[in-house]
Amino acid sequence: MSATYHVAGMTCGGCARSVEVAIKDAAPGVESVTVDLEAGTVTVSGSADDASIETAVDDAGFTYGGRAA
Amino acid sequence: MSATYHVAGMTCGGCARSVEVAIKDAAPGVESVTVDLEAGTVTVSGSADDASIETAVDDAGFTYGGRAA
Repeated sequence: MSATYHVAGMTCGGCARSVEVAIKDAAPGVESVTVDLEAGTVTVSGSADDASIETAVDDAGFTYGGRAA
Repeated sequence: MSATYHVAGMTCGGCARSVEVAIKDAAPGVESVTVDLEAGTVTVSGSADDASIETAVDDAGFTYGGRAA
């Protein structure tokens, strides 16, 4: 299972890595995290729920924008 | 009280904000956080201990490098 989310505020590879690490650390059940900087999206595979992703993104200082698709 | 720490991996304003938010959220006693992107340092005022700062920086996906001064 995977889902893609809008995440605003990521502007470089450091931002991307930050969001990736935050989601992996904070959301149980996450298997992989892929950031698309240009699209401003993050694709998460695994069994994490949307609320965990939102909390992880917000805590890392970026803006969660819900499911992209 | 304030202390300045080396933090590697911050390359843009998004990174800076991420580290700032992570430290403010994770470390009790923090009053303010100031990031110097060019120097690669973060100055924290308040009563937070070094270990809390280190954990917050690492969890945000950046590299803690100890006290700068």
